[in-house]
Amino acid sequence: RNAVQIALMPGDGIGTEVSEACMGVLEVLARRHALGLHAETLRAGAMAYRDTGSAMDEATFERARAADAILLGAMGWPGIRYPDGTEIAPQLDLRFRLGLYAGVRPIRALPGVPLALADPRAAQIDMVILRESTEGLFAARGKGELIDDREARDTMVITRATTERLSHFAFDLARRRAARRGRPGRVTLVDKANVFTGFAFMRKVFHEVAAQHPEVEAAHHYIDAMALDMVRRPWDFDVLPTENMFGDILSDLGAGLIGGMGFAPSADIGDGHAVFQPSHGTAPDIAGQGIANPTAMLLSAAMMLDWLAGRGAGPGWAEAAAELEAAVDAVFAAGLRTPDIGGRAGTAEVARAVTERL
Amino acid sequence: RNAVQIALMPGDGIGTEVSEACMGVLEVLARRHALGLHAETLRAGAMAYRDTGSAMDEATFERARAADAILLGAMGWPGIRYPDGTEIAPQLDLRFRLGLYAGVRPIRALPGVPLALADPRAAQIDMVILRESTEGLFAARGKGELIDDREARDTMVITRATTERLSHFAFDLARRRAARRGRPGRVTLVDKANVFTGFAFMRKVFHEVAAQHPEVEAAHHYIDAMALDMVRRPWDFDVLPTENMFGDILSDLGAGLIGGMGFAPSADIGDGHAVFQPSHGTAPDIAGQGIANPTAMLLSAAMMLDWLAGRGAGPGWAEAAAELEAAVDAVFAAGLRTPDIGGRAGTAEVARAVTERL
Ligand SMILES: CC(C)[C@H](C(=O)O)[C@@H](O)C(=O)O
Ligand SMILES: CC(C)[C@H](C(=O)O)[C@@H](O)C(=O)O
Repeated sequence: RNAVQIALMPGDGIGTEVSEACMGVLEVLARRHALGLHAETLRAGAMAYRDTGSAMDEATFERARAADAILLGAMGWPGIRYPDGTEIAPQLDLRFRLGLYAGVRPIRALPGVPLALADPRAAQIDMVILRESTEGLFAARGKGELIDDREARDTMVITRATTERLSHFAFDLARRRAARRGRPGRVTLVDKANVFTGFAFMRKVFHEVAAQHPEVEAAHHYIDAMALDMVRRPWDFDVLPTENMFGDILSDLGAGLIGGMGFAPSADIGDGHAVFQPSHGTAPDIAGQGIANPTAMLLSAAMMLDWLAGRGAGPGWAEAAAELEAAVDAVFAAGLRTPDIGGRAGTAEVARAVTERL
Repeated sequence: RNAVQIALMPGDGIGTEVSEACMGVLEVLARRHALGLHAETLRAGAMAYRDTGSAMDEATFERARAADAILLGAMGWPGIRYPDGTEIAPQLDLRFRLGLYAGVRPIRALPGVPLALADPRAAQIDMVILRESTEGLFAARGKGELIDDREARDTMVITRATTERLSHFAFDLARRRAARRGRPGRVTLVDKANVFTGFAFMRKVFHEVAAQHPEVEAAHHYIDAMALDMVRRPWDFDVLPTENMFGDILSDLGAGLIGGMGFAPSADIGDGHAVFQPSHGTAPDIAGQGIANPTAMLLSAAMMLDWLAGRGAGPGWAEAAAELEAAVDAVFAAGLRTPDIGGRAGTAEVARAVTERL
């Protein structure tokens, strides 16, 4: 059994609060399952930028790169910006520099958590938005052109290589989910192939890859129709690979359906590196009050344990992941309510309740 | 009083069915209010392309351009495509060629129509997505590059000129809505200014224009947060100008909240021309059965009457618009149910019920 090294980047605002709560839970799990889990805390984000002039310095990046996994709180702060006005978002740099093409964003209705939709089938929502995270419209980040204060251009880039990798990832994920859930998997590419060259290309490459995964159903759907179906019949979808910008939109929309960003974990996965972080931001309005909902962070940590298990971390890791997820489910099913869903349980109280269930 | 010339383009599939129902209602209204309304039916769309090799020939385009307003059903058909695989969508050509930069897409909860959200405040949903309709990502339509079957590029274009016009349009619209609704107006630009040059530029220009409309509140919101808020608190928004692709997504999402595409009218407005059409497509699955919901088409026609009134069509037009909208509201409030919301009232039955209320 090897020691597993985690780079913890708490970041800014409530990122630091949910990170702390999460590490407490992870320590308990590590003891129970004798996981050789070691964490090193690294500083990056808007406050780091304000204090040092660098949002994530090279030494920090190298430590993160050397770790087995990166666990991240949230980064960014209003009023602290790069000189060009864009957001301090080292998490985007991590995605690009480490090639974390697969942004895995599960949207699952937790038992007991109030849902946005009136239809009772919303309780069955269990899909994964797979946001491509290294190209698409975001390829223009830092490269947009502004011509004479008159016209701006940002170019969306879709490559065969990344589309192939993302598509394979989607089918592999759907196959694992199908086994777990005991029902056939389905991968639905979300695009706008009726209008754009890049999306027509993406759809073509996707179906080429689909032919290599005949055991999983493959489909495609337009982004506008998908936005509609997210509120009409989200329970009908399984794994949804899509372009970076579309994935950003759909994953937040999905989070809205299942109780908000406080319930939306994520993983950005490449071929060798991965970052796990809640989908929410730093929430300046509630930062420092101890009331942030740590659920998304805890579920992100569960995704990390599961991913490490798949990479041969040794016995106990997959069990720890499943236990953590089940414990989170159980505390909400039992009636725990955080402020974002109208209750009063603060960050530490949720962590304590989860720990007690472990 | 002048005669007003309408170019009617029924298009394909249910487009022709809702157009026919709508014209019947408009004739009754025209008689009641002695409107000098003349309509000429023009052929365009996927079937026209299949039969003639042209989706909208130049003579047809010129007739449409010469009309006072264009009323359009829906266009496009699966399996009928341009050689490059993109959709037969002459409505996009109309937007580009006539400079119809303002895609007005009202999202309003009709009394009696079942809503997607559980929160009772959803009954207060009354916003307008203002989709810029001539540039943004759609500037790449027909211009995307494909390099060696390896990489595709589509460039999003945002210009100062169009952003200024769209912003002025938004503030003018919010001012009119405020007067009508007896409450202050608010315009919220939806962008992704934290990452993209084009959106940072769009936000800057928007706020320059906002300064010229001090009587209307101006705000901005990120597209991902907006997608979340569309399901969390859509009742809080008023007028939402945004980029073309974002507007396409948000307007379908909004339609999903208020009963589906059957309830979502739209107008594409430029400085002198305008196209009015339901937001829905040609619905091949139900075409030819007489069960398409004509509500979006009727509400689009009401928008047309109102727009013509604003352009000096003469007395009676604004009243006719208000009457048509009120009649549609009344029939649903009274319990009429179309198949898309679980009922059995077909296209003709809705038209009849609305006509009876007039
Ligand atoms: C902070 C922002 C730049 C980021 C993104 O758009 O990727 C965030 O919204 C996310 O979803 O991770
Ligand atoms: C048919 C399609 C090309 C069109 C668009 O994307 O503009 C439609 O979705 C719309 O919203 O009018």
